[in-house]
This record gives sequence, structure tokens and C-alpha cells, in this order.
Amino acid sequence: MTETLRIVVVAPDLAVSDPDDEHALLQAERSRALRIGLLENGYNLVATLPADVFLSERLAQLQPDLIIVDAESEARDALEHVVLATRAARRPIVMFTNDEDTSHVPDAVAAGVTAYIVAGLAPQRIRPILEVAMARFAHEQALRAELAQARNALSERKTIDRAKGLLMQRQGLNEQQAYDKLRKLAMDKGLKLAEVAQRILDAADLLG
Amino acid sequence: MTETLRIVVVAPDLAVSDPDDEHALLQAERSRALRIGLLENGYNLVATLPADVFLSERLAQLQPDLIIVDAESEARDALEHVVLATRAARRPIVMFTNDEDTSHVPDAVAAGVTAYIVAGLAPQRIRPILEVAMARFAHEQALRAELAQARNALSERKTIDRAKGLLMQRQGLNEQQAYDKLRKLAMDKGLKLAEVAQRILDAADLLG
Repeated sequence: MTETLRIVVVAPDLAVSDPDDEHALLQAERSRALRIGLLENGYNLVATLPADVFLSERLAQLQPDLIIVDAESEARDALEHVVLATRAARRPIVMFTNDEDTSHVPDAVAAGVTAYIVAGLAPQRIRPILEVAMARFAHEQALRAELAQARNALSERKTIDRAKGLLMQRQGLNEQQAYDKLRKLAMDKGLKLAEVAQRILDAADLLG
Repeated sequence: MTETLRIVVVAPDLAVSDPDDEHALLQAERSRALRIGLLENGYNLVATLPADVFLSERLAQLQPDLIIVDAESEARDALEHVVLATRAARRPIVMFTNDEDTSHVPDAVAAGVTAYIVAGLAPQRIRPILEVAMARFAHEQALRAELAQARNALSERKTIDRAKGLLMQRQGLNEQQAYDKLRKLAMDKGLKLAEVAQRILDAADLLG
């Protein structure tokens, strides 16, 4: 199943303009090794993208299952672009960096990074890391969904209660009668109870 | 701040009974290296415990900030004990294992494991891993707290609504009067609205 994970790597350009820039050569070499490792592990590496203003659009087109941020030292900058680009649609993010400064780890985690690996990792170690990142992301998405559901239930209940109160007050109904009226309206219109309740509140607002 | 993290390592006994058991010797050596790495990183290693039935009690006494499960190959068994032992009080769990079978990763993650490292890790890599584990745990705890709060608000609202309905029905009050009565009772008794509502429902149950 995970064999076919569609992965986008966000990394600086591999092309080294100055052949004497040892640091850049090393980084390019390390970055290449990571991509080879991904391919050897059978992952589907759909694109390697720079961390720039087009990232958001490209990710929306590619819809990867997981994003790997390969940042040598400019971890914070690269991360900022990726976080902006995934704000609308959260995705598992694994960050490979040599940046041993961990002061921005809490920010990275809050932003959705599920794994943060100080680089220098053997290719055979990649699979468990990605699997944990996927599982951890799924787990957190489930928590988020539960939270959204609980908040929605609360908000629907408040709306229904307000509409019920309005019917009781304006039409002299008791609670059961008001509830029955709401339910009948919902059924007649093929709407959810909360939707009918919201329409009643909106109408009351309009009519004053 | 993280210098003083209090860590418990859950690992098999280091004592190797059979000096010819190469596998056991290797495991003991690796386990020792991990502990040395923790100490060299300035962490407070408060105990090394076996994964047995006493683990829960020992953890309750020691109250560590983080638990490291050092499991060579019997990852699933060790994890089961740790999960049982932290069910009442969740803690960040980092798992070091050589078990490349990742089929139980989703279970481990659902059980609260925040990092899962296939072993063979240089000591200088330990700190970022533990920091991410702590941050990820804190992040998830915050989500859990929000979820508990939303669920609690929903449940309190249901209780209050039921009590209000009961007062309206039995005492011929309108909604506002029923609510005012609940609020007055709560103030008089120094209770929360939901608590007074629950008492009214309990009493109605008793009185039939």
C-alpha cells in the first residue's frame, strides 16, 4: 500500500554554479542520496520543487500524499513556505535537516511537521520514518475531525435551541410543540434540523 | 529547560547470562550506548525498568517526562506493557527498535508513541528526536484537551436542556423562567449550572 505513496520533495536546486563551493557540492550530494533512497524504497517521487511562491499552486496540482522538506541549514525559511502552501490542505510533512538548532522544533510541529530528522540518515532508515509520519498524521487528522464534529454538534444544538425558543416565544408553543414544528419543517423541506433552525433565526432577524 | 527532562528507559535486563550469546551481547551493548548517549546529552535518566507487570506502578511513582522504549526485536510486547502502564496518564513515548517490520507502526502511534526510531542512531541525533517527541506530544495533548472541552460543553448543554424541559413541563414555566430558576438554584448552592441540572434530573428519576 505504502509502495505507491506519492511524494514531493521540497529542496534547493541541485545545480551547483560554483564548482569550488564545497558546501554546495556536499548539500547537492546529500540531497541526491535522499532522493535515490526514496526511489530505492519504491516510493513514487512525483516532483522536486524549490521552496518558493509557486509551491502552493504546484502542490495543489500534484496532491502528494507526503511532503519531504530537505533543508540543509535554511530550515526555518523552507518550512515557512511549505506551511503556507499546506495551510488549506494539511499533509504529512517530514523534515530532513542538518540544522542542529532545535529552537524552532515546536513551531515546526505546531505547523504540521510530523517528523524532523537531523540528516545523515541511511536510506534503509527512510521507510519507518515515513510510515510513522503517515500514521501520526492520520491519527492527528482523526482527532481534528472528532474535534470539528464535537464543535459542530454544539453549534447546531445552540442554533436549534435558539430557534425553538423563538417559536415558543412568538407562537406561544411549549417546548415539545416547538420541537415538533421544527422537525416537520425540516422533513417537509428535506433539510437538517439545524439548517431549518438557522433559516428561522435568519428570517426573524430580517423581519425584526 | 530540556536539560532536566526526567527520562525512564524501558529495556530488557542488560545482564547477559550466556557469554556466547552474541545476539544478547550486541543488544546489551546497543542498549548501553543509548543510555550513555542520553547521559552525555545531559538528560536525567531516572530509571531503567523492565517491561513487566510492575511497570505501571513504578511509572506512577517516578512520573517521568518521557519514556524511551528500547526494544531490540520484541517491540510489540514491550510496547504493549508500556501502553497499558500509561493509559491513565499519557506520556511522550519514543521507541528505539531494530525491528524493521513496520506493520505495527499504526498501532504504536495510536497508542501514543510519538517517535519510532529504527535503531543504529548516533548519540548526537538523540536530542532533536526527543525534542520533537515532546513537542508533538504537547501539541496532541492540546488537541485532546480541546476535544474534551467541546464534548463536555455539549454534554453540559444537553443536561441543562433536559432539566429546563423538565421544569417547564412539571412546573408550567416558560423557557426563560425555567432557565432563571436553574440559575438561581445554582447560585444559591454554589454549583455550576450543569451540576444543578444533573441533580434535578437525578431527583426526577428517583421521584419518578
